[in-house]
Amino acid sequence: MAAEHLRLYSYWRSSAAYRVRIGLNLKSLPYETVPVHLIRDGGEQHSAAFKQVNPQELVPVLQHGDRVMRQSVAILEYLDETWPEPPLLPAAARDRQRVRALAQTIACDIHPLNNLRVLQHFDRNWHVPQPERDAWVQHWVQEGFTALEAMLADHPSTGTFCEGNSPTLADCCLVPQVYNARRFAVDLSKYPTITRIEKACLALPAFDAARPEKQPDAPVA
Amino acid sequence: MAAEHLRLYSYWRSSAAYRVRIGLNLKSLPYETVPVHLIRDGGEQHSAAFKQVNPQELVPVLQHGDRVMRQSVAILEYLDETWPEPPLLPAAARDRQRVRALAQTIACDIHPLNNLRVLQHFDRNWHVPQPERDAWVQHWVQEGFTALEAMLADHPSTGTFCEGNSPTLADCCLVPQVYNARRFAVDLSKYPTITRIEKACLALPAFDAARPEKQPDAPVA
Repeated sequence: MAAEHLRLYSYWRSSAAYRVRIGLNLKSLPYETVPVHLIRDGGEQHSAAFKQVNPQELVPVLQHGDRVMRQSVAILEYLDETWPEPPLLPAAARDRQRVRALAQTIACDIHPLNNLRVLQHFDRNWHVPQPERDAWVQHWVQEGFTALEAMLADHPSTGTFCEGNSPTLADCCLVPQVYNARRFAVDLSKYPTITRIEKACLALPAFDAARPEKQPDAPVA
Repeated sequence: MAAEHLRLYSYWRSSAAYRVRIGLNLKSLPYETVPVHLIRDGGEQHSAAFKQVNPQELVPVLQHGDRVMRQSVAILEYLDETWPEPPLLPAAARDRQRVRALAQTIACDIHPLNNLRVLQHFDRNWHVPQPERDAWVQHWVQEGFTALEAMLADHPSTGTFCEGNSPTLADCCLVPQVYNARRFAVDLSKYPTITRIEKACLALPAFDAARPEKQPDAPVA
């Protein structure tokens, strides 16, 4: 496919945007970052202009030519179908199922519970104090990571990465979720396979360049 | 592929299991239902035996021969790759992206926030009263459905179903979510495209046979 312009609506600390940045880097696809500040002025994702881009008022959004795409995991599948090398999914259907299930364990059952809009809802509507909000985040990360650790540690397909020895969709989701876990001071010592894989990923330039603190909209340290 | 035995660990009212039942029916695949009662005895999904099947302690799980598969959307992708007819995804990558994004809007950003384990957590840990728990469910369904309605109503690819004129992965997720919305008395009058598509789906035997009340573990009316 012709290298039409790629624009990523992103926020440096959004873990869903981080997934897509990793995917774009793994495919060696250059892209333009369009920063959407999720906090400032009540959140730019809620502006009338951005609602036209995504009625869900969430990042990331990837624009490819005139096509506007939402949902990070669906975007990663698109990248993999459009630019097949290097693959983000293994060849066999049953292995692809495993990779997608690992990714969805994060993308469905950990991340959405701990997303900014949920924590804001607790604060503004239920007046849940900060320590309890933090405990909520830690709880769901621990629930999810305990299951993930079991699925990774006990499985013969696990290699250097979640599935075998090259990164997949599952690793694109895992690394941002571990970043989030650290932000909320989750004790990661119980998840040695997860942290081992995270380390292997971050040693690759594609993952390293996607780190939140390396984004153009990250605050200057 | 040889028709190895398919076993679905399911609960009649689980909307994630409902998705997979629709997919199996659309592919005309016979399967055995293994009921996992999510309420009785503190929840059979938390038993030691079931944790061996799924460390996430969630349904559905699909067993195909000796392969154990988790995560409903990843299971639907497996069904589609293993038994390609009739397809659950369109042919073009950009249309596949749209269908997956619609599915994930439900599977990531609506359903997990309203799942049983979350409502139990509010009840047991935060002592949130029932009316506020119901309002929570309604809030996230409304947020999600408002975005979905916009994505469906304004798009030229929307047909009888979410994408064109045959059911896809998106419809497999939509119908169970509308069922859930009704359970929690969400006003659906603002979502005419969603309810129109739901009606078209439920007119098909594959969807009708997957309804919660038609499952072997549903309570006798």
